[in-house]
Amino acid sequence: MPEFFKVASAQQIFDSLAGFARLTLEQIDLEHALGRVLGRDIISREELPPRARSTMDGYAVRAEDTFGASDAVPALLKVAGSVAMGSLPDMPVAPGQAAEIPTGGFLPEGADAVVMVEYTNPLGHGEIEVTRPVTRADNILERAGDVALGETVLSAGTRLRPQDVGMPAGLGITEITVFKKPRVAIISTGDEIIPVTETPSPGQIRDINSYALRALVESVGAVPIACGIVRDEPYLLKSALANALEAADVVVVSGGSSVGERDHIVEVVNSFPEVEIYAHGIAISPGKPTLLAEVQGKPVFGLPGHPVSAVIVAQVFLLPFLKYLEGEELKKEPTGQRISAVLATSVHSPHGREEYTRVKLERERDGLVARPVFGKSGMMSTLVKADGFFVIPIHAEGVAAGEVIDVYLF
Amino acid sequence: MPEFFKVASAQQIFDSLAGFARLTLEQIDLEHALGRVLGRDIISREELPPRARSTMDGYAVRAEDTFGASDAVPALLKVAGSVAMGSLPDMPVAPGQAAEIPTGGFLPEGADAVVMVEYTNPLGHGEIEVTRPVTRADNILERAGDVALGETVLSAGTRLRPQDVGMPAGLGITEITVFKKPRVAIISTGDEIIPVTETPSPGQIRDINSYALRALVESVGAVPIACGIVRDEPYLLKSALANALEAADVVVVSGGSSVGERDHIVEVVNSFPEVEIYAHGIAISPGKPTLLAEVQGKPVFGLPGHPVSAVIVAQVFLLPFLKYLEGEELKKEPTGQRISAVLATSVHSPHGREEYTRVKLERERDGLVARPVFGKSGMMSTLVKADGFFVIPIHAEGVAAGEVIDVYLF
Repeated sequence: MPEFFKVASAQQIFDSLAGFARLTLEQIDLEHALGRVLGRDIISREELPPRARSTMDGYAVRAEDTFGASDAVPALLKVAGSVAMGSLPDMPVAPGQAAEIPTGGFLPEGADAVVMVEYTNPLGHGEIEVTRPVTRADNILERAGDVALGETVLSAGTRLRPQDVGMPAGLGITEITVFKKPRVAIISTGDEIIPVTETPSPGQIRDINSYALRALVESVGAVPIACGIVRDEPYLLKSALANALEAADVVVVSGGSSVGERDHIVEVVNSFPEVEIYAHGIAISPGKPTLLAEVQGKPVFGLPGHPVSAVIVAQVFLLPFLKYLEGEELKKEPTGQRISAVLATSVHSPHGREEYTRVKLERERDGLVARPVFGKSGMMSTLVKADGFFVIPIHAEGVAAGEVIDVYLF
Repeated sequence: MPEFFKVASAQQIFDSLAGFARLTLEQIDLEHALGRVLGRDIISREELPPRARSTMDGYAVRAEDTFGASDAVPALLKVAGSVAMGSLPDMPVAPGQAAEIPTGGFLPEGADAVVMVEYTNPLGHGEIEVTRPVTRADNILERAGDVALGETVLSAGTRLRPQDVGMPAGLGITEITVFKKPRVAIISTGDEIIPVTETPSPGQIRDINSYALRALVESVGAVPIACGIVRDEPYLLKSALANALEAADVVVVSGGSSVGERDHIVEVVNSFPEVEIYAHGIAISPGKPTLLAEVQGKPVFGLPGHPVSAVIVAQVFLLPFLKYLEGEELKKEPTGQRISAVLATSVHSPHGREEYTRVKLERERDGLVARPVFGKSGMMSTLVKADGFFVIPIHAEGVAAGEVIDVYLF
């Protein structure tokens, strides 16, 4: 049986991935912007607000008129009018005057602050007393105080959160330029693999990977293209791969966990023009039998057939890479929130490979505790029971109980 | 101007929300399961694997035949055959025999362990030597070792992650029962509000909230129903609310930040039959002018018109509630990952309200540092610049620099 001939470290894999070009840009309507990555900076062509607005219900005043006001010695002001929402106030506030103003109302000429309604008393006859002083700009949002003309409000490479979608809306920007979503072709191989809807004959197993990988791809906003199950025959693999390269930006072939199948995939990849094989094997566990190649300018991942290994390799390498293709920085670490926890029991790891150990998190009195989920590496249930995993570095022999570790949440 | 007449604490709001019934269930195809919440436990009707499988490339053996094997004194075994993927092995492994087996291959009769190929040498003539002993069950996943018959593999109330989708696939379960997605009607009110696509006349502002709230609702997998902008006229509000109650599971009206508008919304809500008002005002900042009511059995949120307040109130109350309606436990805290950080500068907070302070996170030498994002509360840019927020409890007067805080990530 042949050996792996080009085993790479996790770092080398990330370095190879960083060499691929990002996807191209497209215009979309702001309504569909959540979770998309900006392709160009969003620059304001307006001021926000276009004019000073009140942030409280109360009275627009000239701050100097309230100087020294108190319950004992209130300032007396004449109410010049009332500011309505939806139009500019037409009354100016002259010295000694105030104008009733709602939250969000635009400040009348002359006024430079707002007194909260709680600190005023109506006296009748169009007069109020003010019992607290304000200083200039109190309780108002000044013109352009939120966004200035020409300001970059959101930068290219930002993945848009809900509030980020609100910002261009406020500026009247309803079309934005984003990176295209990566299209990811997913192929399952292996003579033992049958569609999930079928009942396995003895020796067969169902195609878990098509489902798990589709969901992983969707989880970062990319578009899965289901290419089904391909028997482990080079001519079938070749035609499936050719179609996938045509339809997608990234091709993921899972399967080939046994040595013969691995050989077929490498052989098929090598039969294309313009091929570079970056790794045939990664010094990680689980996930060693992983292939990374470039075929006609497109990345091809050969993931292990074992679902657990396939999911972990996808979490560690494929998902950060998809986010990178879609315009984000390439984070050379697993996708998913990172959180600190105390390791509950020591974990041993063989030297010479980076190890991804699944853990369950429990909040205890002293903080978060991470308990390794025991079970053989091939057990799907270990992934389901785990909240995340931590990384034992390639040259470490393990991590001792009580050490603080970074857990990547699933 | 009338006072708020029923100001509730954040805790009281959560308690009221917990009184609403969850949504009903529906059947969906497993292909669309990512992010959905299980309505019923998933119970395995099969064993996984159905028979012992190898987790390594190597040779299936009887463990006792390898007892004491070493480089110096290898065990000598006769190769009885080779296990193929996709079918059951037809050769038994008798004492003194081994069978070549790929990763994932099913174990032949008689074998009870696998020797990794690295610890074997071919001798020709159909014989191998084994240079390491194995014990029973080494390098195999035993029958039902991953999932037992009748085992609950995923529990009702679980929001499905990618690997969770893979598990039922492996068990041949392609239809699952999930909670329906909450449908959320979103109405913007206010005479000053214009559609985002229009250019504001003096005094008008664009409808940020429809966009931000739609995106917030989508961010937890719920379904927004855009109901547009309604002028601040009770009869218009009433008809919009009636339509929204018809079409949606939850109604969110934003606007009414000024006292007059707030009154209109309460008045309109009260004009329906079967109304309970849980809160008219919450002791929080930002977000005090929030209404929570039940109208004809459905929850109605009256959010502040200020986009910043609306987004924060939605993060803190609406999103956890939507997840609860969809079958998850009601977490009485903001949605979003919680992460510990050291507060960079002291923040003062007025007694008597829970305060949500936006922060930006920076990874420094000693860990994560949270810097308050300064700016008036109405500034949309503070939300865009922030990575999350932390909560100053209702009876605290602030948090001192250097204290460790829990930041809820946006």
